[in-house]
Amino acid sequence: MELKLIPREELDRARGDLPLLADMCRANALVAVKRAGSGHLGSSFSAMDIVVHLFYAELNTVAVGFDSPDRDVYFSSKGHDVPGLYAVLQALGVIPPERLLRLRRLGGLDGHPDVGIPGIEANSGSLGMGISKGRGIAWAKRLLGRDGRVVVLTGDGELQEGQNFEGLQAAAAHAQDNLWVIVDRNELQSDKPTDEILALGELEPKLRAFGWHVATCDGHDHDALARTFAQFRAVTGQPKVLIANTVKGKGVSFMEHPRALAEGGGTYRWHAGAPDDESFVRAHEELVVRIHERLPDVRLVDVDEAEERSEGEPESGIATRTHVTDEYVAAAYGDALLELAQIHPELVVLDADLASDCRIRPFELAHADRFHEAGIAEQDMVSAAAGMARHGLLPVVNSFAAFLAARANEQIYNQASEGTKVVYALHYAGLIPAGPGKSHQSIRDVSLLAALPNMIVVQPGSSEETSALLRWAVADAHENVALRLAIGPSPRRLELPPVTPGRGAVVREGSDAVLFAYGPVMLHEALTAAELLDGRLQVVNMPWLTRLDEEWSAELVEPFGEVFVLEDHAPVGALGDTLRRALGGRPVTVFGVEGWPACGTPAEALRYHGLDGSSLADRIALALGTRTAT
Amino acid sequence: MELKLIPREELDRARGDLPLLADMCRANALVAVKRAGSGHLGSSFSAMDIVVHLFYAELNTVAVGFDSPDRDVYFSSKGHDVPGLYAVLQALGVIPPERLLRLRRLGGLDGHPDVGIPGIEANSGSLGMGISKGRGIAWAKRLLGRDGRVVVLTGDGELQEGQNFEGLQAAAAHAQDNLWVIVDRNELQSDKPTDEILALGELEPKLRAFGWHVATCDGHDHDALARTFAQFRAVTGQPKVLIANTVKGKGVSFMEHPRALAEGGGTYRWHAGAPDDESFVRAHEELVVRIHERLPDVRLVDVDEAEERSEGEPESGIATRTHVTDEYVAAAYGDALLELAQIHPELVVLDADLASDCRIRPFELAHADRFHEAGIAEQDMVSAAAGMARHGLLPVVNSFAAFLAARANEQIYNQASEGTKVVYALHYAGLIPAGPGKSHQSIRDVSLLAALPNMIVVQPGSSEETSALLRWAVADAHENVALRLAIGPSPRRLELPPVTPGRGAVVREGSDAVLFAYGPVMLHEALTAAELLDGRLQVVNMPWLTRLDEEWSAELVEPFGEVFVLEDHAPVGALGDTLRRALGGRPVTVFGVEGWPACGTPAEALRYHGLDGSSLADRIALALGTRTAT
Repeated sequence: MELKLIPREELDRARGDLPLLADMCRANALVAVKRAGSGHLGSSFSAMDIVVHLFYAELNTVAVGFDSPDRDVYFSSKGHDVPGLYAVLQALGVIPPERLLRLRRLGGLDGHPDVGIPGIEANSGSLGMGISKGRGIAWAKRLLGRDGRVVVLTGDGELQEGQNFEGLQAAAAHAQDNLWVIVDRNELQSDKPTDEILALGELEPKLRAFGWHVATCDGHDHDALARTFAQFRAVTGQPKVLIANTVKGKGVSFMEHPRALAEGGGTYRWHAGAPDDESFVRAHEELVVRIHERLPDVRLVDVDEAEERSEGEPESGIATRTHVTDEYVAAAYGDALLELAQIHPELVVLDADLASDCRIRPFELAHADRFHEAGIAEQDMVSAAAGMARHGLLPVVNSFAAFLAARANEQIYNQASEGTKVVYALHYAGLIPAGPGKSHQSIRDVSLLAALPNMIVVQPGSSEETSALLRWAVADAHENVALRLAIGPSPRRLELPPVTPGRGAVVREGSDAVLFAYGPVMLHEALTAAELLDGRLQVVNMPWLTRLDEEWSAELVEPFGEVFVLEDHAPVGALGDTLRRALGGRPVTVFGVEGWPACGTPAEALRYHGLDGSSLADRIALALGTRTAT
Repeated sequence: MELKLIPREELDRARGDLPLLADMCRANALVAVKRAGSGHLGSSFSAMDIVVHLFYAELNTVAVGFDSPDRDVYFSSKGHDVPGLYAVLQALGVIPPERLLRLRRLGGLDGHPDVGIPGIEANSGSLGMGISKGRGIAWAKRLLGRDGRVVVLTGDGELQEGQNFEGLQAAAAHAQDNLWVIVDRNELQSDKPTDEILALGELEPKLRAFGWHVATCDGHDHDALARTFAQFRAVTGQPKVLIANTVKGKGVSFMEHPRALAEGGGTYRWHAGAPDDESFVRAHEELVVRIHERLPDVRLVDVDEAEERSEGEPESGIATRTHVTDEYVAAAYGDALLELAQIHPELVVLDADLASDCRIRPFELAHADRFHEAGIAEQDMVSAAAGMARHGLLPVVNSFAAFLAARANEQIYNQASEGTKVVYALHYAGLIPAGPGKSHQSIRDVSLLAALPNMIVVQPGSSEETSALLRWAVADAHENVALRLAIGPSPRRLELPPVTPGRGAVVREGSDAVLFAYGPVMLHEALTAAELLDGRLQVVNMPWLTRLDEEWSAELVEPFGEVFVLEDHAPVGALGDTLRRALGGRPVTVFGVEGWPACGTPAEALRYHGLDGSSLADRIALALGTRTAT
């Protein structure tokens, strides 16, 4: 796949032509996402004209510098449009091109915004926090007597998060007129229209009712943007919000809404993920043709020319896992849910706009009346489920673990305190995939639920175990169950013994030490370590993370000199701590995700945290060696 | 203090006269709160006409029974108005009078609603969840083909919580016309006007913009309520909301807004807490005089006549702690904050409408420009603090631990991931006071923050230690600090050694076993246990809950046969687990709050959980005896 980037000098030549600049940045964002193998193009493109307009025609940021306390501050609250922003930052010389080519790579550019990256003003990616953060910055500026506005971009689907309305009301109450919000009103959520997921109604009166100055314009029309921003500058005593009507996928005909939605049979394909080779070529050509029309002698450079390949990086550029199967435990979950629905009429499924990722679309299609869409509003979803559970239903609540266990934590506590039963499906649990970055990687969810008296947290390592654990959760469990699920493909197919509550099972015999692990990702690494350690390491699959059969565990560890635990989680608050409580007196060494989860390929992130099979083997050998010697 | 209750027979005689019934229930709620020593009168009284109207004139609940699946469901989302609801439930015969007299007592009536109590439909007390729960129930009713409406009462200040708007938008999108919401628009929050805390603006257009059918009427006018509800019954395809204009403290002249606010110099005194004897007598007389006017021969009975005193209950009726001092560590926190403000101009303080309880009112008065009121919106508060911290300020964020650590958990994670420093003051941490019930008692907050890489959780046990830890957090700590604070009076004054990061200190020498404890409540119980154990128990104050100096701890426990930890927290996820990680190999026995935290007096709750000094001494003696014997 030949990839070509538009270098900064060429972008500089287009300075006076904002639509051209936007297309050039679209082309570069497209290349970055293609090279990364994933990333969000649809909203990078819908927001591109706005971002280019802000940096080239409105904000003082580039003129005074990103370090100036008096700078205008821009950031995106939704954050998944960051490939577009990176392309603009590269155009401005803030980010070097070789870094643009390291999107979603270790030491490159995070899949969602992170303040460690030049030009990034706020960590985002978990939705709905941006207006609040922006008004915090705007308030600090006012207190410290600093110049500069704060401009926050939000999605439209994102407005389903209740925190937005907290931020809106507070900014109005505090009369924060140095705060601007721009709603990227592209009318699509992750893969369906906002009106189908959870209609927002008329946005203008809604935002006006919260005390804001409101304007609407075409978010791709630079004259209209200029006029609106000029008007905003003149309004005092009130924060201002622009509803920018945009087209998701703007700039590439077949990615544009509504055409793309129609071609996808009602599903929008270009929200996340890299295009295949053929689509990439078509999209890139279309952009380059249009760029040529306005800048006929534009020069594109080969990616290899732009890139400084870092030491030790695989030749392919995209380091993928060596071992990947076609098994997805989340798919097994979706299938099992469908089966269980037949024999459990009380079972209902709740979604917060992640139905495809959570593999519950088949359930939605088969049982529309028992499927409940809450929109991007995890707290509401959990409390609604609590109400349903009180009145005879068994709700199965779905979202990503990072969002569900954290944002709706108090709602889960409240539900649990009513003594009803709800099954929480915590998708995208753990470190991998590591490309989206720390807003999405969930390494705290077990700790967030472990202290609840009537909650059991489990994680399956295979499709069969997924079905079995879900069946147990639905049919047998007396309490709430949180089912952690890996979202990516399993690195190897595992034959795991039938599930027994509170007990795991040996999946590989070994002589010197025992290693507990769970989930397809870490079981693979554990087994790889065991293979490297030539029979010295026994590997135990332990899907029960927060409670266990103490007799079983005591007996199991008895013959071994060392007890290790491999966490797909921070080292605090998960299986390691559960085992320590149970084994009272046996030292337990935990290998977990220390610090902030790394962004990168699976191999990069695992290696970074010393959790890949080879690193684990080294760490275990060292521990065995050292401790044997003393 | 002579307390008299209106018995059910007398209330039955008033059935046709709703204003009279409301006053009779007000009188009984007043007695219940007086007897309990705490409880929320202001909003019990503002909502009373609505609640009486619903149960006596609108809902089918009493007719079909609280167990009928086709019943109308009523509950209050704010929940602190529950003394008023209990009085109505007593009038209806759902709750016996002797239980009304056990408000906030073990086995009596929880300080906030709990479904374990007859007639209570939902656990609430943590604000903003009610509309979501109500729409969950309404959705279940529709799916299951059941009759009955769902009526949810909310506060007006409560509408600052963003989750309300998630629930509003979803209910409208799902066209849930069997859902009614009533806003108890009494215009006051905990102790100040809503307009001063965070103005809501015009509620009608706001709610209409969210797709609801909206009406407004006088919430004390039964004819107006009847007309509005009749209209609501006729509206289909849309959920309905009534803005009921009410008077906080309604029914007792000197508790009524705005008079009470004026008399309180701008602060409303009757939101929470029992009136003193003189105020109680005046209030009760005023109600009884008015009741007499409409029911001249009304009979009141002595409380002793109504009550069956349970076995072993203290004679006084109100079991308070034996040992209480005039020390409040939260007050020391407020003082220290004021001092630190002088030398740290970057220090700013954020509040979510708990300024009095969090002892930051003095800071607000002294530094109005550095005080930021976010309203009842913890998520917005934390993200706003994140923005401030990125731009040079040191935010100190205040709320109750149960709300801050849980509801804003993902926002805290996001802030922490930016590498800035924020101090989180977690007020009302731990089991005590136990009267408000499980929505307010915070026994999970340490576990909710422990897995964050750059967060240290500490809890001081005395005023001096509070100042020292806050000073360390503000001046010395490089990371986020969560400062857990007891809200009640300290049971004893402790002389604690100066703080050393990561290390605790022996506060009482002992020979056989060591017990780690923290905070004024549990240190007192630990010392009481040690006193009973005649020198066998060494007590260590350990304010560093999530990280410690391993060398220090290893050395400290070395001479002892047994290591115990007393948690003001669930047994999972706090100091016990931290010690187990550090001591690797030493068994650690944890005494923590097992299960759901009990509601009751401090003595009752501590005894219930086996955490009072005497129970602890027994448990420790048993452990030492048993283990010595083996």
